[in-house]
Formats: sequence, structure tokens, C-alpha cells
Amino acid sequence: MDYQKIINKIHQSINPFLGIGKPANYIAPLSNVDPKKFGISLMTCKGEVFKIGDSEEKFSIQSISKVFALTIALRKYGSKIWTRVGREPSGSSFNSLIQLEYENGIPRNPFINAGAIVISDILLDSMKKPKQEFLDFLRNICDNPNIDYNYEIAQAEKETGFRNIAMANFMKSYNNIHNDIDEVLDFYFHQCSIMMSCKDLCRAFLYLSNYGIDPINKNIIITKRQAKKINSLMLTCGLYNEVGNFAYRVGLPGKSGVGGGIIAVLPNELVISVWSPLLNANGNSFAGIKALDLFTTMTGKSIF
Amino acid sequence: MDYQKIINKIHQSINPFLGIGKPANYIAPLSNVDPKKFGISLMTCKGEVFKIGDSEEKFSIQSISKVFALTIALRKYGSKIWTRVGREPSGSSFNSLIQLEYENGIPRNPFINAGAIVISDILLDSMKKPKQEFLDFLRNICDNPNIDYNYEIAQAEKETGFRNIAMANFMKSYNNIHNDIDEVLDFYFHQCSIMMSCKDLCRAFLYLSNYGIDPINKNIIITKRQAKKINSLMLTCGLYNEVGNFAYRVGLPGKSGVGGGIIAVLPNELVISVWSPLLNANGNSFAGIKALDLFTTMTGKSIF
Amino acid sequence: MDYQKIINKIHQSINPFLGIGKPANYIAPLSNVDPKKFGISLMTCKGEVFKIGDSEEKFSIQSISKVFALTIALRKYGSKIWTRVGREPSGSSFNSLIQLEYENGIPRNPFINAGAIVISDILLDSMKKPKQEFLDFLRNICDNPNIDYNYEIAQAEKETGFRNIAMANFMKSYNNIHNDIDEVLDFYFHQCSIMMSCKDLCRAFLYLSNYGIDPINKNIIITKRQAKKINSLMLTCGLYNEVGNFAYRVGLPGKSGVGGGIIAVLPNELVISVWSPLLNANGNSFAGIKALDLFTTMTGKSIF
Amino acid sequence: MDYQKIINKIHQSINPFLGIGKPANYIAPLSNVDPKKFGISLMTCKGEVFKIGDSEEKFSIQSISKVFALTIALRKYGSKIWTRVGREPSGSSFNSLIQLEYENGIPRNPFINAGAIVISDILLDSMKKPKQEFLDFLRNICDNPNIDYNYEIAQAEKETGFRNIAMANFMKSYNNIHNDIDEVLDFYFHQCSIMMSCKDLCRAFLYLSNYGIDPINKNIIITKRQAKKINSLMLTCGLYNEVGNFAYRVGLPGKSGVGGGIIAVLPNELVISVWSPLLNANGNSFAGIKALDLFTTMTGKSIF
Repeated sequence: MDYQKIINKIHQSINPFLGIGKPANYIAPLSNVDPKKFGISLMTCKGEVFKIGDSEEKFSIQSISKVFALTIALRKYGSKIWTRVGREPSGSSFNSLIQLEYENGIPRNPFINAGAIVISDILLDSMKKPKQEFLDFLRNICDNPNIDYNYEIAQAEKETGFRNIAMANFMKSYNNIHNDIDEVLDFYFHQCSIMMSCKDLCRAFLYLSNYGIDPINKNIIITKRQAKKINSLMLTCGLYNEVGNFAYRVGLPGKSGVGGGIIAVLPNELVISVWSPLLNANGNSFAGIKALDLFTTMTGKSIF
Repeated sequence: MDYQKIINKIHQSINPFLGIGKPANYIAPLSNVDPKKFGISLMTCKGEVFKIGDSEEKFSIQSISKVFALTIALRKYGSKIWTRVGREPSGSSFNSLIQLEYENGIPRNPFINAGAIVISDILLDSMKKPKQEFLDFLRNICDNPNIDYNYEIAQAEKETGFRNIAMANFMKSYNNIHNDIDEVLDFYFHQCSIMMSCKDLCRAFLYLSNYGIDPINKNIIITKRQAKKINSLMLTCGLYNEVGNFAYRVGLPGKSGVGGGIIAVLPNELVISVWSPLLNANGNSFAGIKALDLFTTMTGKSIF
Repeated sequence: MDYQKIINKIHQSINPFLGIGKPANYIAPLSNVDPKKFGISLMTCKGEVFKIGDSEEKFSIQSISKVFALTIALRKYGSKIWTRVGREPSGSSFNSLIQLEYENGIPRNPFINAGAIVISDILLDSMKKPKQEFLDFLRNICDNPNIDYNYEIAQAEKETGFRNIAMANFMKSYNNIHNDIDEVLDFYFHQCSIMMSCKDLCRAFLYLSNYGIDPINKNIIITKRQAKKINSLMLTCGLYNEVGNFAYRVGLPGKSGVGGGIIAVLPNELVISVWSPLLNANGNSFAGIKALDLFTTMTGKSIF
Repeated sequence: MDYQKIINKIHQSINPFLGIGKPANYIAPLSNVDPKKFGISLMTCKGEVFKIGDSEEKFSIQSISKVFALTIALRKYGSKIWTRVGREPSGSSFNSLIQLEYENGIPRNPFINAGAIVISDILLDSMKKPKQEFLDFLRNICDNPNIDYNYEIAQAEKETGFRNIAMANFMKSYNNIHNDIDEVLDFYFHQCSIMMSCKDLCRAFLYLSNYGIDPINKNIIITKRQAKKINSLMLTCGLYNEVGNFAYRVGLPGKSGVGGGIIAVLPNELVISVWSPLLNANGNSFAGIKALDLFTTMTGKSIF
């Protein structure tokens, strides 16, 4: 299949829609991004790379980082993490406190904010320099030593993150946060601030399309079972309150972030990532969802 | 792959666990079923049939019927049904009224009771003899003229279905039920009462593993896109409050019923159905979930 | 105190505000009432009667009837009714289903719709001709043989009362409705349809200002303790989601109805009733709340 | 009325029930209080004092302090505080986050924790030395220069107060906290830690039974209207999730704390306070509720 031709066509078709939606506006560094940015990158398990538009420009990956944090947690602790966080779709607003109260401080899954904060807490248990170790992991799977935090974004998240601070304290009241709340949140906010390009994201996610093994350098990141399970979690919980719609229209495991990035995985074949900063009502990239919908429509490729 | 050997082995492994769980006990005809019943059937797109145990004994398919109702609705009306029912996971108890109140009488998806009641209401708009037409559709896709309602079960559902009556009236208060409530519920309760065996279910669901076309007789049931979309809905919404766990452990689109049946679809390859009446805390067949988990573990076959 | 002068002044002050608010518009017989109607009546325990405006025109008392139903239930069954209905403020929309789900089908108090439906169910247990007996009770305490149901309103309530039907079925699913749902609701909807004037309401409520004894004919309606307790329930639960505001601004036990009537009780002294059909955002008579606020401000009379 | 005889009798009747209930156990200084402590004090507007049992032993007044904070806020700001906090009963658990989410960060009333935190935030706006000013106010209305914070309790509250920290951050996310969260909570936790005896509480609350004026020294604490309104708020919101039950059984405006104290006000006559540390399921003193129920039953005195 001529992927370059396909993503060129998608790029062209989506172009008229750039400008629709709203940027994440709770912090200045996100709301100030050029709203017309749009990039697509695609990488196959054989290592072929395709790209178009702003695909090499770094942006804040935000919640996409939750997949990396979960990967590290599964590597370190295996399935015992599931006593601290669930794996069911949340069925409502992605940072709702209501469900936490219903379910005694156990977040529904690792891809909502509360769940990712618990994962951060779990990681702190065994990490001496958590921020450095997280970065090392990312640089390694990206094969890019320049991946880094955006400290301005991390700081801005911290200064406005009252709901996340509320959730961390609320979970602490249920004894589901064990480390110092400030340290947990500092780690969490830094993860959200990671800057990567579409191309970086494709390279980083390749292990999830190849059953846990990096197909380029043959490094074993996680087991085959774990890779399949992370994919299943992305499908059922990866797109905030638009999980069902994304599965219905796109049909690929994926993860989005309020920075406007979305990554999707077709097991045994490829990963594709898109970036455009303006968001739809569900907090997902308006152009990104449209682009991925087009991709599976044009190629007929989905897991269903 | 020697599917007969695999399901034999599963049958043997699960046998010691029969007796764990609780039957659906809200109506006598369900609670009185022999708790040790256990059947598995598997059918490939090429038409090969495998079975073991009580795979030819008919049981009440209950919520599995919701997939057939949705299929007919999509055939008749296409995507405009999505103005009346959502396609997001419900994230809480499968017959909760809370979410309906939050979302102004629009049920989250067609596989929760409220959603299926709306689908029944939609079908009534264009059916002259709804119960007969529904039966005709089923007999046709099963290739089995003996498929029928269990009138005792339908009657018992009606006599105890106060929550479903409540939901129908509640949605009517939001103007999301258009026909007479008693007729809508009569149709819905009859659908739940349909009796089928594991073997019947495999035959009936074959079109969903074959992109909408019955691979045996080449009848076009729905379009390829629609088949993929129903599969995606089963994956994100098909197992009550255990959707994430099922996707994580089994990794196949599936649908369960409180009669103890579960059906799962592997696109382009096969369908597999299991039946055992005792349920886990989420209302899904205890042995059934375990059997399907074993199946994908042993075969490595899942969509992820 | 010259009550006639006071209510004259109130009538004059409120007059410019008539026309603000919205009528109950779920049934035609309520929405069609002349929006400028406004009456006040006041009756002291000594039997003095004061009135102004449309104080002798009958209107649909709606939820005010819930106080009469509770009175009869307490007479017949005493405090054992509190196993079936609570006595705490509901803290949210007056016909919400959410709280019922939280609290296993036990309504929060007898003055929300669900609670009044349970009271109706309780009354049916011991009444042979419930509608006639209810009417007899009212005619007796009003000393007015012309009090009657408005059958057109009762019918309209029935035809649009999907939420109430939903609630009754929902409570039945928790086994908190014992009689036939249609009979319970027929009785309930008729109670809501009762037509009374401000003057009738004052006469009827006199026993609650006089510790359970009708001060005119010395009939014992309920015990002193029961009268005080009904007053306390009106104060904490009598005005939908405006209980706190009414206690804060008016400071009297009271009960409102969506027909635009409000009755308030000053123990050991008097009852005062107002009627004006246009409602504020909480479903209480806009002019009525304002009039009662003025009354306690001008007279300094409140229970606090 | 011979109040001394009455409280003696109550003390004797309640004695056998001491030991029933559970102490507040979230912090050691509360859980370690002798569970058999029991004191009653009563003070009339004429200045007569009656007491029995441990009525002069100081205990942690906890939420009773919310009435003092509200009093100061009304003195300073008048009715404009109601844009930041409601005055409706909460209808559910006293520190629930759900209602805050429903109502965009506006707490239901000043007597739930969230509401008192907002009041603390409001007070900080105009206080230079808030803790000292609060203490000065209390020492003045108690006529007791020894009233003080319990710094051990304040510290323990802070160390375990994750839900309160969560709520403050959550309200900040809705912009309903203006000052630094740590300062607001430090002030709030200190208020909860105030130590007073039953006798102190009676003296302190006398202005609420005397229309805002201290009847002993004639100081005007608040206006008559404000005093009536605080009483109405205590009646509708003062006893956590037992407001209706307390109004029904006791029939007096009151406020309780998890330290086991309860204060009740009979306007124009007296205040009565009780203390016993073991709590019922609603977080109110088991013996305290029983004692106040007996008091109004024996004396026939209630506002209804």
C-alpha cells in the first residue's frame, strides 16, 4: 500500500478544516500554539517511515505520556498494579471526581488523570531519580537523545492543576497514594510536559504494534501479552469520553492528548500519529480524529 | 489449528470450576436452569463447526439479542439511529438510571437495557408484526426454523421488569420513546426470551466475522462498514461493567447475556460461543469468561 | 396586629411583580390559568379570617395535598410509616431518580413525588374507596362539602406523568410499592388535582397551627406531637429545592405546589396562604414567596 | 420551669446509654477522649445557668465553630457572602464532592466542610491576623479569656485532612477560593480545634437566642434579622445528614460537631448544649441527640 500517497491525500482533504475547534486553554504554552499546525507520520513494523506537514515539530504530548508510564509500571511490577487502578472505561468526563467517590479512591483506568497519578505514585516506589529514569526510557524507545521535558509547561500545569491536586488528595484519603503528594504530582506534571514530534511518537510506539519488541533494534520492551493488553486498554479507555466513537469510526487502539496529538496502533503492521492543536468538544484533536477516520476508511485497515 | 482439540481441553480445564457463581435469580425460569450446564461451540468462516458439552441445548439468550436488534435497526435506518442512542461505554451498572438523567434520556449505547428499549421503539416504527419479523430474521440468519420465543420467560420478565418499565417511562419523559410503552416493552421482553444453543449463536453471528456477509449462503446481512462498527461496539460496550476486563483478558468483540451465554467474534476467522448459567459479580457467565480467556491464551488469537 | 391592613399592603406591593415567572406548563389546565391571579388569605387560631385578591378562587393545590396525605397516614399508622419513607431534605431536584437509586428505593421524605407515591401506596392498604375517603377527610377539615377533584387535571397528569410512573416502577423494583401501580398512581394523580382556594387552605391547615386540634370545632385531627412533627417536615422539606432559602427569608413551616399555591403555618397563631400561578426557577410561586417574605418582614413573626 | 430538675433527670435517663456509638477516629486526640464523658448545660436569656455532669470540661467543638465563622462573615460582609456559598440542605454525606461538581464549586451551605472553607477564605480577605481575630471574637462572646485553639488537634487535622485539601483545591479550580489554599486550610483547621465546655458554648450562643444581642452585657453581635437567619440555617443544615430527623424529634435550631458536642437554641428563651464523645452513624453525638430529644419531649418546648 502506498502510505505516502494516502497520507498526502489525507493531509490535503483535512486542510480546509484546520481552524475548527478550540485549543487547550488552561495554560498559556498550550493555548499559544499556532492553531493551523498539522502533521502526520506513519511507521511500519519494517521500519519504513512516512510523513507530511508538521510531522517533525515537537509538541506537548500530554496524556499520551500515560501509555509510557503504564508500560514502565507493567515492566516493573506486572499485573499487581491492578489492585490500585482499574481497567474499565470511565464513562464520563475524564477528570471527574464522582466516580472516584463511588469506587473508594480506585481510579477506573490508568489513562484518566487520577489513574495516571496512581501509576506515578507506584513508579516513585522504585525509582531513585524518577524524572531522569522516565526520560531515559523515552529517549531509548524513541532512539532520540533530545527528547525532554518542557519545564515551562510543567510549571504551568502545577500552578493551575487544582483538580489534579484535589484528586491526589482525595485518593490519599482512601490510602491509594503512598508517596508525598507534591512529589507524585511533580512527576506527573513533568510527564505531561514531554515534547515529541509525530515522528518521535511513531518510533516510540512501534513496540506496541510489534507485540512488545522494538522491531528495529529487537529490544524487548514488554511481553507479547502485555503489549496486547496495553492495546486493549487504549481501545477501551484511550480517548476520554469519545472511546466508543473512536472505536466505531476509526477502529484502532489509540491515545490522545490535549496538546492535539493522537497516536493509533495497527497490531503487526504500523503506527500512525497525527497532530493538530485545536480540540473538539471531547478534548481530542478535531483534525486528528478526522484524519484517522479517513485513514481507516481509505485503507480498510482496522482491528475489526 | 485443531480447534476441536482446543475446545476439548478448555472444556476439561473449566469443568472443576462449574458451580461457582450465581444464576440470574430475578425470574424462576432462569434460576431453575441446571447450574452445571456448560457448552462451547466454534464456527469458522469456512463453515467448519466444532462443539463440546451442552452446545446444542437451547438457553435464553437475553442481552445477546440486543446485537440482532441493532443489526436490524442499522439495516433499516442506517446511521440516523445514533441521534436516539449513543455509542459510548456506560461505565457503571448496566441498568442505571443515573446516566439517563445526566444525559437527558439518551442511553449511552444500544447494549444497555435502556438503549435496547430505544432500538425496539425505533423498530416498531416500521414493523407491522414486530415479533414475527424479528423471529423471521433470526430463523433466517441461523438457518434454523425452530428458533422461537420462550413465552414463559417473556411473561416473567414483564411481571418483574419494573426497572425496565421505569426506564422506558423515564425516557418517554424526555420524548425518546415514541410508541406505546407497553408495546415497546412487550417487544423488548420477547427479544430477551429467545432460546438458542451455542451452535445456533455461532451460526447466527457468522456474518459479523465475515464483514457483513453470511459466508455459507453469501447473503448480505449488512455492509462491511456496519459489521466492523457492530464489532467495535461489542468490544467497547458488550459486557456490562466488565468491558475493559474482557478486552484485556480475552481481546475479542463479544456480547453476553444473563442467561449465561457469551458470543465472541474474531473478524475474518471465526466465532465462538460458550454457555454456563452461573454468573460472576458483573452478571457475566463465570465459566464462560474463563473459557474464552483460555481460548485466546491457548491460540494467541485476539484482535490486538 | 391589624392583619387586614398588612395583607392589603402586601397585595399592593406585590402587584407590580405579577407577570414575572413561568406557569407550570406540562399540562394545559395549569398553563392556561390567568397568570395575573393573586390571592392572600390569613386565618388565626381564634377563627378570624382575612383575605384579599383572588383568595376565594379555587386552584389546583398540587403538592400541597401531600401534607393531607401524610396527615391521614400518620393518623392511621403512626410512626411505622418511616420504614418506607425518610424524613431528610432531598437536596436536589424534586423528582430526581438519582437519590432513589442511592437509597434503595426509599424516598427521602413524604413531600417529594416519590415519597407521596409511597404514602399513597400505604393508604391504599387500608382504604376501601381511597379517593372518596380522601375527599371526605378534606371536606371535613375544610368544613366545605364542595371540595372536589379536577378530573381533567387528574387525567392530564396521568397522560404526561412518565417520570412519576418511572419512579413508581423503580420503587416497585425495590419492593417499596405493594399495591397495583396503576391504582397507586391514579390515587396520587387525583390528590394532586384537588381544587381549593386560599381561604379553603387556611381553614384546612388550621389544625397544624393549633397543635393537631381544629380550633373552631375542637376536632382532634392528630396528636400535638404529630402536628409539631409535620410542621418540622414542612420546614425542612416543604419547598422543593428552595427549603433553605424559604426558611432563611420567611422562617415558617410551609408547603408549595406547582399550581402556584403556598401555605405557611405560625404555630399557636395563624396560617397564611397565597396563590399566584407564575413560578420561579425552583417551581414555587414567584409572587407567593415574595408575599410571605414581606409578611414575616413586616410582622416580625417567624419561628426563629 | 425547673430546668435543673429536668437536666438532672435527662442525665440520669441517658446514663445507661453511654458507651453506645463510636468516637471520631480519624485523629488520635479525638479518638482518645474518655467515651463515657457526658455533660449538659442550659442558659436562659435572663442569664440563669444550669449544668450537670462534665459540663465544664473543654472538648473540641469542631463543626460548631462554623456558626461562629458564619456570624463573623455576616457581620463583616452581610448578605453578599451568598454569592459564594448556598443555603440549602446538602441532602447527602457532609463532605461529599459530588454535589460540588454538580454545582460548579459553590458549596450548598456554610455548615458543610466545603462551605466553611469558603467562609474561611472570605474572612481571610479582611483579616490581618485571622487566627488571633477569630479567638478574640470567641473570647469576647464567651466572656472567657481562656478559650484557645488545641494546636495538637489542628496539626492532626492538617496531617489527615486530605478530603478537605481535595475540596479546597477543587473549589479553587472553579475559582471559588481566592487566597492561598494552605493559609485558608490552616485557618479552617484551627477553627475546628477550638476547645470549649458545654457551659462556654451556652454563653457563646446566647446572642442567637436573643435576636443578635448578648442579653448579659447588651453587646450587639449581629442584627435581629441575621440572628433569625442563622437559626434557620442551623435548623435546615446544622446536623449533617440528620437534619430532618433532628428537626422532627427535637424541633430546635442546632449545630453538632464530631467532637460530640451539640448546641440547640430556643429563640427568646434559652440555649442548651450537650457533650458526649461517642457518635451515631450520622456523625452526631449518640447521647446528645437522645438528651435533646428528651428535653423537648419533657418540656414541650420546640419552635414548632
